[in-house]
Amino acid sequence: MKQFIYADNAATTKVAPEVLEAMMPCFGDVYGNPSSLYTKGQEAQTLLQGAREKIASLLNCKPTEIFFTSCGSESDNWAIKGAALANAKKGKHIISTKIEHHAVLHALQALEKQGFEITYLDVDEYGIVSAESVRAAIRPDTILVECMYANNEIGTLQPIREIAKICRENKVICFTDAVQAVGNVPIDLEELGVDMLALSGHKIHAPKGIGALYIKTGTRVSTFLDGGGQERGRRGGTENVAFAVGLAKALEMAIAKLPEMNKVQAMRDRLIDGLLKIPHSRLNGSREKRLPGNCNISFEFIEGESLILLLDMMGICASTGSACSSKSLEPSHVLLAIGLPHEKAHGSLRLTISHETTDAEIDYILEKVPQVVDRLRQMSPLYEDYLNGKI
Amino acid sequence: MKQFIYADNAATTKVAPEVLEAMMPCFGDVYGNPSSLYTKGQEAQTLLQGAREKIASLLNCKPTEIFFTSCGSESDNWAIKGAALANAKKGKHIISTKIEHHAVLHALQALEKQGFEITYLDVDEYGIVSAESVRAAIRPDTILVECMYANNEIGTLQPIREIAKICRENKVICFTDAVQAVGNVPIDLEELGVDMLALSGHKIHAPKGIGALYIKTGTRVSTFLDGGGQERGRRGGTENVAFAVGLAKALEMAIAKLPEMNKVQAMRDRLIDGLLKIPHSRLNGSREKRLPGNCNISFEFIEGESLILLLDMMGICASTGSACSSKSLEPSHVLLAIGLPHEKAHGSLRLTISHETTDAEIDYILEKVPQVVDRLRQMSPLYEDYLNGKI
Repeated sequence: MKQFIYADNAATTKVAPEVLEAMMPCFGDVYGNPSSLYTKGQEAQTLLQGAREKIASLLNCKPTEIFFTSCGSESDNWAIKGAALANAKKGKHIISTKIEHHAVLHALQALEKQGFEITYLDVDEYGIVSAESVRAAIRPDTILVECMYANNEIGTLQPIREIAKICRENKVICFTDAVQAVGNVPIDLEELGVDMLALSGHKIHAPKGIGALYIKTGTRVSTFLDGGGQERGRRGGTENVAFAVGLAKALEMAIAKLPEMNKVQAMRDRLIDGLLKIPHSRLNGSREKRLPGNCNISFEFIEGESLILLLDMMGICASTGSACSSKSLEPSHVLLAIGLPHEKAHGSLRLTISHETTDAEIDYILEKVPQVVDRLRQMSPLYEDYLNGKI
Repeated sequence: MKQFIYADNAATTKVAPEVLEAMMPCFGDVYGNPSSLYTKGQEAQTLLQGAREKIASLLNCKPTEIFFTSCGSESDNWAIKGAALANAKKGKHIISTKIEHHAVLHALQALEKQGFEITYLDVDEYGIVSAESVRAAIRPDTILVECMYANNEIGTLQPIREIAKICRENKVICFTDAVQAVGNVPIDLEELGVDMLALSGHKIHAPKGIGALYIKTGTRVSTFLDGGGQERGRRGGTENVAFAVGLAKALEMAIAKLPEMNKVQAMRDRLIDGLLKIPHSRLNGSREKRLPGNCNISFEFIEGESLILLLDMMGICASTGSACSSKSLEPSHVLLAIGLPHEKAHGSLRLTISHETTDAEIDYILEKVPQVVDRLRQMSPLYEDYLNGKI
């Protein structure tokens, strides 16, 4: 067994050796600026363009529809603020959901301060938004619908194709934050029908610091990051050629491994079933409409942060939910949205596994988590109250 | 001699081997998310924080005043749009100059569409803005003054300390785009007195895809990239730990080599003097207030793009001006601003050298450029007209 078990692949992943190998020329001789006219610049341009074409081919869109960004959050900000700015004359109403990533929610809140009105749709107890609720929320001044493809905390998969269809019928731009979905579930952009899609490299074994935004030809979106003529004049800044190449390689590898995802899913199911044997536990999110590697379980009477720290001492890397908000004392907005009371929302454990996870690691997790939960409950005044029949 | 001579260090630079070495752990075992609570995440957090502290120490500011971004352009966009948004209630007037980088100019143009008014100050024939013209332009509703530290095309150094002093006296935020200056001239933020400063990694032998923004404590600036709690809640997106580490290492190396910059400057002077022997040539920018590695010369009667392509065939990487606008057919706004007529602005050559440049390379450039200029003039109808006394 490795020194530790990494079960937080939704937070970030290790750079794959093949990805590093693909990037290395850019840290060596292929260092020209892709915008430069001379050969040394065009070498870099060729690598950049090759990466773009590979990604477009893997997702079934045109290379001119793929724009590199610095991360999923930038893609989210661009799509949302760019669509808002470009379409403000048509209307200032945007539809989203209550369980989006903070990159989406905080971008929307920034727009609210600028006079936009946002409808945050409810989700059901599994975290699923109904496509019909999107239809019902659309108004004449609605310019954008945003819904994440898969939730980062509870792994719920949303009915994006249906939502996109409703948006098309109503001539409203449809954007999906697919940061957690790309590389974990099959995505065909032509079939999906969205106008914009955000993805991130470091969730699929590319490095941290690269993302992309798919913008369907004809979609009205303003530039977010103004600058030189890079990315066909739509995203300024000298291109991160190395990481673009890395992203393309990582996506290629992730998609090639999709047929083996059933093994990950089987391990995940064993994890879920095993952990649900712990008394006073519940699975958060849908059992069926769920990312293959996501397990999110709440344990009553305990506090998630302590759980993470004790598991860390046992060599298990896990989280309570989003890594981005790990320093916040607020309970997860996602768990609150699916109806968990505050105290239960605090006691959740997210384990996100990958192709690299082994059965032995699952065994180890299934051995240790019950011990740790038990230990924390022994220390918990809430649990004592429960045992004494006080609650 | 190498296979080619790289004389376009203002466009981008090669990643230094020491920088790559410093980054490598992040592409290997130190792959945790810096926001994660467990040890594996905190390893990454430690590297990230170390990079921040090193940069702060090198520039003489507090670590909490350094924010990592994806590039200089993002830093520019953040500083400008963030200051505008945060201070719009106070006023909507911004002062800048006519020779800024497109990341600045296009960000300002985006603000103009949103109702901000921008004063673009003139520069003198050397490309220098006078601090007094900044003072004269300040109005009660002025919220921001932006002036680049050093121009990317003609290398002109601006009187930023004086401008910052005037801003302080008038309680206006002072931002400098120092992408071309950092690592090439000594910068002490406490002494300089600006409120914000943008820098970029790939100009100083870190990779493309990393920048930073210095924001002095107390400066009112909105978040540009909304998201999770990264960068103290002010810049969303999982941090590019590898490149942050690389940026810190590159900056350390660049600053350590500043005492040797006189050698670069001597080579540059030899280059300028040699090229000015070509008839009908002129130096663009100031001879004294100039980046140590920048040489920008206009040759009458010829077209810069052809010059670049012929030099490329001779193994010399050079540019006409900014790489970011190399695909634009417009003449340089910088050269127009210093008073060059359109036809002369089209015939400029920018050579930007570095510590890695050798005397033999300077010799080679001084041998080849006159040949190429001569060859292009032989093909030039303008030159023929001149020889025939028609112009």
